Amino acid sequence: MRILATLLIVASAASLTVPAHAQFAKPEDAIKYRQSALFVMQQQFGRVAAMAAGKAPFDAKLAAESAATAEYMSKLPWSAFVEGSDKGNTKAKPEIWSDKAKFTELSEKMQADMSKLNAAAKTGSLDSIKAAVGAVGGSCKACHDAFRS
Amino acid sequence: MRILATLLIVASAASLTVPAHAQFAKPEDAIKYRQSALFVMQQQFGRVAAMAAGKAPFDAKLAAESAATAEYMSKLPWSAFVEGSDKGNTKAKPEIWSDKAKFTELSEKMQADMSKLNAAAKTGSLDSIKAAVGAVGGSCKACHDAFRS
Repeated sequence: MRILATLLIVASAASLTVPAHAQFAKPEDAIKYRQSALFVMQQQFGRVAAMAAGKAPFDAKLAAESAATAEYMSKLPWSAFVEGSDKGNTKAKPEIWSDKAKFTELSEKMQADMSKLNAAAKTGSLDSIKAAVGAVGGSCKACHDAFRS
Repeated sequence: MRILATLLIVASAASLTVPAHAQFAKPEDAIKYRQSALFVMQQQFGRVAAMAAGKAPFDAKLAAESAATAEYMSKLPWSAFVEGSDKGNTKAKPEIWSDKAKFTELSEKMQADMSKLNAAAKTGSLDSIKAAVGAVGGSCKACHDAFRS
């Protein structure tokens, strides 16, 4: 009975403590996942940024769609910065893992700015979009400067 | 006046008829975009499929989150199969462009099956999830067999 109880506790604890990297079969998958999510985000954000910069004609519907997708994508990459995914085909700096609080802070700032861009794009006001695009650009740069080599 | 009117019509027509590939700066971007979207989708779907196959412990919350993201991602790749993106780092077969109706049909089937998986995952029923995972797997395979080399 005691053995059974112990086994049940171990099994239960194991299922509660599956480490984050277990979501990815290999560290390379985690790297590719976050890069993929960031690429899709960047492409969609880039469409809105091009309109804000006057490099593409302003299309309110397309801007709203792109900003919505960019916001969705902005939430995905972070769970893939798992332990052991600091080596290989990645520009991720070791500071991502040694200064996790700062990394999380900057990534959350970007997500918040992307949400504001989505809200601005829904209004259809190009001036609001321009301001929000500038904020997102600043957030991207701050995190890349600190955490991407 | 007539010249001005003509210019306005041309400018207006141009903004209405921006071709799909103009959304991507280069064909390589379109290729990378669709591959990225499909990779994120596959990783999230894979988590649910692993639970359905008994290869990972069933976690209803994680399954629901993953299925929701997989459904969202399933809608993104298709706009990136633009003209001129059939060459390069891609396994896309020419039939994607020569038999567009069939390609669209299969891609819509997959999206519909992924929506059903999302609905099944929300119920928390592993049996429902298993059935829906099987359907998605069939949709993926049907399209890959026909359109991916």
